[in-house]
Amino acid sequence: MRALQLVSPGKIEVREVDVPEIASDEVLVKVAGAGLCHSDVHVLHAPEWPIPNMTLGHETSGHVEKLGDTVTGFAKGDAVLVYLIWACGVCRPCIEGRDNVCVNQGGRYAYPPCPGLGPNGGMAEYMKVKARYLEPLGDLDPVQAAPLADAGLTPMHAINGARHRLGPGSTAVVIAVGGLGHVGLQILAATTSARIIAVDSSEQKLELAKEHGADLVLKSDEMAVKRILEETGGYGADAVFDFVGVQPTIDLATHTIAPDGALRFVGLGGGKFTYEANGAAEPLPWGVDVRRSFGGTRTDQRQVISLAQQGKISVEVQTYPLVDGLKAFADLEAGRVPGRAVLVP
Amino acid sequence: MRALQLVSPGKIEVREVDVPEIASDEVLVKVAGAGLCHSDVHVLHAPEWPIPNMTLGHETSGHVEKLGDTVTGFAKGDAVLVYLIWACGVCRPCIEGRDNVCVNQGGRYAYPPCPGLGPNGGMAEYMKVKARYLEPLGDLDPVQAAPLADAGLTPMHAINGARHRLGPGSTAVVIAVGGLGHVGLQILAATTSARIIAVDSSEQKLELAKEHGADLVLKSDEMAVKRILEETGGYGADAVFDFVGVQPTIDLATHTIAPDGALRFVGLGGGKFTYEANGAAEPLPWGVDVRRSFGGTRTDQRQVISLAQQGKISVEVQTYPLVDGLKAFADLEAGRVPGRAVLVP
Amino acid sequence: MRALQLVSPGKIEVREVDVPEIASDEVLVKVAGAGLCHSDVHVLHAPEWPIPNMTLGHETSGHVEKLGDTVTGFAKGDAVLVYLIWACGVCRPCIEGRDNVCVNQGGRYAYPPCPGLGPNGGMAEYMKVKARYLEPLGDLDPVQAAPLADAGLTPMHAINGARHRLGPGSTAVVIAVGGLGHVGLQILAATTSARIIAVDSSEQKLELAKEHGADLVLKSDEMAVKRILEETGGYGADAVFDFVGVQPTIDLATHTIAPDGALRFVGLGGGKFTYEANGAAEPLPWGVDVRRSFGGTRTDQRQVISLAQQGKISVEVQTYPLVDGLKAFADLEAGRVPGRAVLVP
Amino acid sequence: MRALQLVSPGKIEVREVDVPEIASDEVLVKVAGAGLCHSDVHVLHAPEWPIPNMTLGHETSGHVEKLGDTVTGFAKGDAVLVYLIWACGVCRPCIEGRDNVCVNQGGRYAYPPCPGLGPNGGMAEYMKVKARYLEPLGDLDPVQAAPLADAGLTPMHAINGARHRLGPGSTAVVIAVGGLGHVGLQILAATTSARIIAVDSSEQKLELAKEHGADLVLKSDEMAVKRILEETGGYGADAVFDFVGVQPTIDLATHTIAPDGALRFVGLGGGKFTYEANGAAEPLPWGVDVRRSFGGTRTDQRQVISLAQQGKISVEVQTYPLVDGLKAFADLEAGRVPGRAVLVP
Repeated sequence: MRALQLVSPGKIEVREVDVPEIASDEVLVKVAGAGLCHSDVHVLHAPEWPIPNMTLGHETSGHVEKLGDTVTGFAKGDAVLVYLIWACGVCRPCIEGRDNVCVNQGGRYAYPPCPGLGPNGGMAEYMKVKARYLEPLGDLDPVQAAPLADAGLTPMHAINGARHRLGPGSTAVVIAVGGLGHVGLQILAATTSARIIAVDSSEQKLELAKEHGADLVLKSDEMAVKRILEETGGYGADAVFDFVGVQPTIDLATHTIAPDGALRFVGLGGGKFTYEANGAAEPLPWGVDVRRSFGGTRTDQRQVISLAQQGKISVEVQTYPLVDGLKAFADLEAGRVPGRAVLVP
Repeated sequence: MRALQLVSPGKIEVREVDVPEIASDEVLVKVAGAGLCHSDVHVLHAPEWPIPNMTLGHETSGHVEKLGDTVTGFAKGDAVLVYLIWACGVCRPCIEGRDNVCVNQGGRYAYPPCPGLGPNGGMAEYMKVKARYLEPLGDLDPVQAAPLADAGLTPMHAINGARHRLGPGSTAVVIAVGGLGHVGLQILAATTSARIIAVDSSEQKLELAKEHGADLVLKSDEMAVKRILEETGGYGADAVFDFVGVQPTIDLATHTIAPDGALRFVGLGGGKFTYEANGAAEPLPWGVDVRRSFGGTRTDQRQVISLAQQGKISVEVQTYPLVDGLKAFADLEAGRVPGRAVLVP
Repeated sequence: MRALQLVSPGKIEVREVDVPEIASDEVLVKVAGAGLCHSDVHVLHAPEWPIPNMTLGHETSGHVEKLGDTVTGFAKGDAVLVYLIWACGVCRPCIEGRDNVCVNQGGRYAYPPCPGLGPNGGMAEYMKVKARYLEPLGDLDPVQAAPLADAGLTPMHAINGARHRLGPGSTAVVIAVGGLGHVGLQILAATTSARIIAVDSSEQKLELAKEHGADLVLKSDEMAVKRILEETGGYGADAVFDFVGVQPTIDLATHTIAPDGALRFVGLGGGKFTYEANGAAEPLPWGVDVRRSFGGTRTDQRQVISLAQQGKISVEVQTYPLVDGLKAFADLEAGRVPGRAVLVP
Repeated sequence: MRALQLVSPGKIEVREVDVPEIASDEVLVKVAGAGLCHSDVHVLHAPEWPIPNMTLGHETSGHVEKLGDTVTGFAKGDAVLVYLIWACGVCRPCIEGRDNVCVNQGGRYAYPPCPGLGPNGGMAEYMKVKARYLEPLGDLDPVQAAPLADAGLTPMHAINGARHRLGPGSTAVVIAVGGLGHVGLQILAATTSARIIAVDSSEQKLELAKEHGADLVLKSDEMAVKRILEETGGYGADAVFDFVGVQPTIDLATHTIAPDGALRFVGLGGGKFTYEANGAAEPLPWGVDVRRSFGGTRTDQRQVISLAQQGKISVEVQTYPLVDGLKAFADLEAGRVPGRAVLVP
């Protein structure tokens, strides 16, 4: 079968490889779509990547092709999504439903193995997956649904961890209406009555934000802090989601979050701020809880799929044949992909 | 009546002042005890303090002496504690029970007025208080109970905001077993089954920690991080409470909190750390929620009083006559007060 | 001034009475609208009502006319809603924000005093209210907003207490799309992504339900149970709200709630069922939590107002001049009021 | 190997059977202890039981003897407890951690398969179990730990679902200090600061209750309701756990639960009460949430084990050799087992 692999740092290739053999607790998935994410580009250019000849692709959907002997609950042909977080399922966080901070597969600083970032991923004709990492897609079109595995999961987790501040009367700020942000915005609109302020540098994305449920859209210029504070009586917004994490967005986030507010960093840009125990010289008001959100839980993933099935969220998808995978990478790097690129075998 | 007042920066005096007049929604409290806190010393030495001739004292207990016309629910002679956070009671956070982040009396960066740090406090023979800032003490000895208004309230709030990580099987770290920390430790022991690790530089305080429910005590030296990680399988502790906030305690806290853990800064020392959106070079694992806790809510205060009434928490108190207030300040500054100094009119 | 009073059992009259005097913690409200509720009709026909010459009306809005000496936070002319639950504000439930189960004003079986059902209510030109029972309405039209005091508050409370079962992927059943039910339906649509099934006997109300966000509408006939179970794979709905409480609706509710589901009785009809410890012979599956919801909290009330301000909920209102109040009662009893009748002085 | 089997209704025998073969996702457990529960007696005397030649025993502990090919996370010799609820692990409740209301293995009215009540249980020398139903026991003595699988799990679930009412200042009532009740009492004492009132008909058990943390013990006579209401100012207790479920205990529970309180039926006695939508003639105050608790989740089970490892809970165990199993059944039926009978192969 064909697979798009990272051959060596900086080099990817579509190559012929063997169809994987499955163990008794695994499922062979015939891939329908494999989303392409900025972190794939990051991996491509990483100066050293410990795993040679790894098949990329961590946003994978497909159909069940073959089931291991002990697998139940799935049948051949079922449409499925590959849950990203391959955690142990046994440690305390896992049984509490917090697979994304698994003790055994991850631990203090690493995160659990993600297909396409360790084990072979989904940019291939087939992929093997343990049955417990599969989520049923029902009637959803798998090609459209592939990006839900990361671009859906990650904002859902950030938002679910902030729901105590998203009741009626609250204000939420979404910083950057890109791949994750435009899904986050739809999740907020579908599951809360918070007033949503979307901030972006692109007029086009702010238009998109309005269509997806933003109550107010703001250009991310020097006036954005002032405008958000005005809109909240000088107090700040109950929840702020930064989907970028570069210096200007962090500055915007820390200066607009309310006391006791939920501040979530989802984007992995290189921005930073100084956190002081006494808060003497920094922008954060009292009681803010700051959290660097990572991935999500199986429940987050299931919920994202439910919203998509209800038609309440969708990802803008641009498909490429798998064999044109290198072109898709090039387009993404060049900023030529408006929504999410999905490779189709 | 006599009152210990801040006359000018650096200068306090016990002076003769008028007994306050009460409005129809206020109560005149005959003070029984007024706790002395490090923040009083901080105020004393502040280079400029905007309020001259302010009576100090924000940990006040006493008995109801006189009631305003519209006050109900209290009777003359009732033992009461003065709740510290004089919030508006009308804004959204207030009606949600989050008075400590009141919009109208406080706002984005200030905190609500606290008696003894703005309005006249309790280091006097009498004090006037709006009825809705009074908490009934029942049979508790008011002199012993006075410090519950801050040394009890503040750790309770920090702990209540971390309960989702304090279930059976969890580990909590208490950094510094001082005025607030030794109450925090007792609250944890009384209300959770978390394994408690107490860290302090003083052998004597570690002994105290054992008596108050610590399962393990550690000297706060260079081995503390290693030991806590060993005790938690390298993963870190589910909740860490830093009751100091200086550089070494912040370093300890950030290096020992678990992924998804609850990290609470309660002490207002001058320590800091760099928070990065992508976590590239910093000690915090994924998903930690970091929060600078401030004061507490009326429910926090009520709960602290309940625990004291049940005999589950207590503060070590050393009394001074109000007229010897200056000696108490001197003793506190010189480190000669082992528990909490309480001025008794 | 004019007031519609319950003179004796079965007899109401519009009479001339004195404008009330206010105490220092009270506000005189110039009434804009007073909603008419089925419980008013119930009171009217109660064989004995302990309070003669009581002004009716527990859904009252208006403008601040005069403020008591110690009242802050309001100004003359402010549009306000009268919060229904006149609780003590001091007991443990009250400071936890659960005023509707106040210990001191209510206790085990009674509920806290409600204006128009004890103290004089809002079917008059003026009404006196303690300032802490007033909620600001901002720019909302008070006449339209009056019913939010009960028809908005009560469903919000029932729904807020069931949010743990209303996440993405859940199904909620609304039984009866009447005065409370049609607001409950709008609250569910605005604040959750639950799939909403509305059940009613009237085709017209089912049409209304569709407009207000129901995903599926069902006639309340013998097929309703079967249809709801079909729609939920035989398992039942995660949350069921019965806004009537008569035998057929209770039977429907108990036979369609899922295991672990949230079953809320909001309507006060005379239906019942036998609850068994071992569940041997009854319709309820394991783990259901059954609750008879009553009134709501100040936060519930504030949230309802927020939703109305955002245009996310509205009540269909039919106005009558206060002097025609008896006609409004007659129309309501005769079923001639499609939405909510509001008396306008 | 030997196994105690239900041969036909009313008849049990210790017989020779084959050691079970394991599949690749299963573990063969060498049984250390198998607890005997009243429900075993119930099954024994059930007029018809659909499964002949079923090995009894749903409270099983032991050591890992052999692992299936795909099993990870366990090693030969590990001490383990068999989690009781054999749910699908895939449905929405399961991934939310609510295995006990599994959609696929159970559904609306049945509960998921429990070993010893369907699949073969632990009253045998060996038992086969899917790896994901095993909980590590660490250093706990498996014989002592066996009853935690039900007598520990079930009260933990009931209590975890009531924690919102068990904060400082609350009162909890434990009805019946038997097999489950005396563990529930210890869990309450270890994990909350609630004031605990224990009620039982036996003086001896009330003594036991005092040792295990009850603050007040009451004979279950006609004065118990009055005394509990007195102790709670006439308002009632915040949470009531009925571990029996017969008519007198249900009457006690419904007459002593506070408004908004958490009422949990854990025992499966034949008692009942009439639930009315309007509460006109029944004992339950407003807002009570009534729930029939069943089994528990994997997190409940893990937490119970943690508490036992910390020495905070323990079950009084009386051991019998497996070959004397019939005598153990006889002793249990005759009321001659003070704590929990555990069969040891």
